Amino acid sequence: MIKRRSLLGGAAAAAATATLPAPAIAQNRRRYKMVTTWPKNFPGLGGCAQRVAARLSDATDGRITVQVFAADELVPAFQAFDAVATGTADMYHGGEYYWQGKALAFNFFSAVPFGMTATEMAAWIRHGGGQELWDRLSGRFGIKAFMCGNSSVQMGGWFNKEIKSVEDFRGLKFRMAGLGGEVLRRLGAATEMLPGPEVFPALRSGRIDGTEWVGPWNDLAFGLHKIAKYYYWPGFHEPGSVLALGVNRDVYEDMSKADRALLRTVCDAETAYTLAEFDANNARALEVLVREHGVALRRFDDAVLKRLAEVSAEVVAEVAAVDDLSKAIHDSFMAERRQIMEWSRIGIEAFVQARRLTSTL
Amino acid sequence: MIKRRSLLGGAAAAAATATLPAPAIAQNRRRYKMVTTWPKNFPGLGGCAQRVAARLSDATDGRITVQVFAADELVPAFQAFDAVATGTADMYHGGEYYWQGKALAFNFFSAVPFGMTATEMAAWIRHGGGQELWDRLSGRFGIKAFMCGNSSVQMGGWFNKEIKSVEDFRGLKFRMAGLGGEVLRRLGAATEMLPGPEVFPALRSGRIDGTEWVGPWNDLAFGLHKIAKYYYWPGFHEPGSVLALGVNRDVYEDMSKADRALLRTVCDAETAYTLAEFDANNARALEVLVREHGVALRRFDDAVLKRLAEVSAEVVAEVAAVDDLSKAIHDSFMAERRQIMEWSRIGIEAFVQARRLTSTL
Repeated sequence: MIKRRSLLGGAAAAAATATLPAPAIAQNRRRYKMVTTWPKNFPGLGGCAQRVAARLSDATDGRITVQVFAADELVPAFQAFDAVATGTADMYHGGEYYWQGKALAFNFFSAVPFGMTATEMAAWIRHGGGQELWDRLSGRFGIKAFMCGNSSVQMGGWFNKEIKSVEDFRGLKFRMAGLGGEVLRRLGAATEMLPGPEVFPALRSGRIDGTEWVGPWNDLAFGLHKIAKYYYWPGFHEPGSVLALGVNRDVYEDMSKADRALLRTVCDAETAYTLAEFDANNARALEVLVREHGVALRRFDDAVLKRLAEVSAEVVAEVAAVDDLSKAIHDSFMAERRQIMEWSRIGIEAFVQARRLTSTL
Repeated sequence: MIKRRSLLGGAAAAAATATLPAPAIAQNRRRYKMVTTWPKNFPGLGGCAQRVAARLSDATDGRITVQVFAADELVPAFQAFDAVATGTADMYHGGEYYWQGKALAFNFFSAVPFGMTATEMAAWIRHGGGQELWDRLSGRFGIKAFMCGNSSVQMGGWFNKEIKSVEDFRGLKFRMAGLGGEVLRRLGAATEMLPGPEVFPALRSGRIDGTEWVGPWNDLAFGLHKIAKYYYWPGFHEPGSVLALGVNRDVYEDMSKADRALLRTVCDAETAYTLAEFDANNARALEVLVREHGVALRRFDDAVLKRLAEVSAEVVAEVAAVDDLSKAIHDSFMAERRQIMEWSRIGIEAFVQARRLTSTL
């Protein structure tokens, strides 16, 4: 020991070797593969996945590197979950409702119709018991998932005819993600949940008559306004869609305690950063769509919204009937929703309304 | 070299020493002092500062440690800024409006009356040019500041009489932070910006007749409902107060590139985490205040809000007249506000309203 210390340079080296045995430095280098459900270089959603990789690498001086795959580069978008569960990839970035074929309750961890906004979802998942329930659900598939980004409240979607009553949904071929698709199906639409890369081609080819995708920023990037005329709001089906990072559980447990802490902090960081990016760019894109492209904004009227809410209530309640865990998730989600609605009413809604009372400021 | 390698264990050691020279490991250990404007162990605001320290330490396996001081432990609350500027402390956690005596424009980086919500503020600071302007302002004092938490939309405050018209503000001794205090002053109130630890004692002793502090969670923790009867909404003066981490610029520049990246990610993480914590706990505390303590909720009526907005417009516009940088900050803030208001109207406001159209879900 004495000889080794002196070779390395005395006390400092002693402290160094005591803290971090030399072989551990090389061992601690980590390379991960991340599959995503997003098109290549896609703004917002794809950018979030890329930033997760960059934040992990930057904060560790390159000790951790993550190779990010767009949809179809390693596996198709909706096979990202299986790729991580089986170890083909180490982690995925996507929306949990894409896995509703595995378990309907996954919808609660992205968005459900008439559910909760971005900040309300964060309140539930981080401080209302949501994460523990999510861990139980994902755990069934050998995955540990975290909230990692939010695409903000969505728009109601693009239509080539006006929606004057719920009768107008009948016969419509429409792309809608998650349980919202089931709501429109019960109102007579033929809905399907196409992955991002297929949305614009399907709309252009007439395979679908209309679609929702995300919001003004991402919808403008896809060019949906080139095909469809009416742009409806509000997005009743996705009031604040959580983006998720799912990690193969063995990979997660093999990480050092510090790396797991860093990963969790990176996911929290992206939750704030991505939401802000969507809100900032949605505001700008909305102006561009209306002023430069002449898009016709339309609000679903109250009668349409009420009927959508009634059907949504049926669809959401049915998820609770699947099994005990689904019921626990449903009940926890709805309890948070009931409680936080009153705070949102006298808090953010009241402020935003008060701000519009006058144009002097 | 050959001898040294063999002593350390061959190729792995060679890689290790090539990557991280041994003395650097000890050199990279960092201890920082953080002063805050918050009472000791205070929920939400103080918790955010503590978590910044914990996240930095956890993600580096203890290589970085931050000692957090509550208000008055190292310096009084409102001297935190000077303590960091002069190097007495390395960083502060607080609200930028507390430094309005240094420059009125600091208000724009926490909250201004009828300004922007938490997510709108994040959109401006992170994606609308706010950070660059903030850097210029803080740079004058040798400080680099980041958004690090948000206490969500605030309540309008605690009163012992009903506010039926703006005449009722006249003669009121009231605690209000930031430019909101100036707005009430112009309406005849005697306002002052007491730091957190002094709020409850001042209300109990009658030094002030009423106060705003934060929101249901923090206000309940202070016991403000024990003294004041009426709890007003919405909080026109602070629609989404940004919490800030300010770092002595020399300390920041002395950090490694990786540590700076980690610090920025930690600040982003707390922006999401703290906002979610406030929203979750505000929702719960609101129920407790109303159901268990019989607090009387009151909404400022439209005439009061309109007059408050008119005076707020004057006060906010005057900040732009201070100097060129203040004008640049004001103009950038107001441009973001104008643009994002339309998105918030058809996005989050429309959704929250639609959700209340029916009680079936």
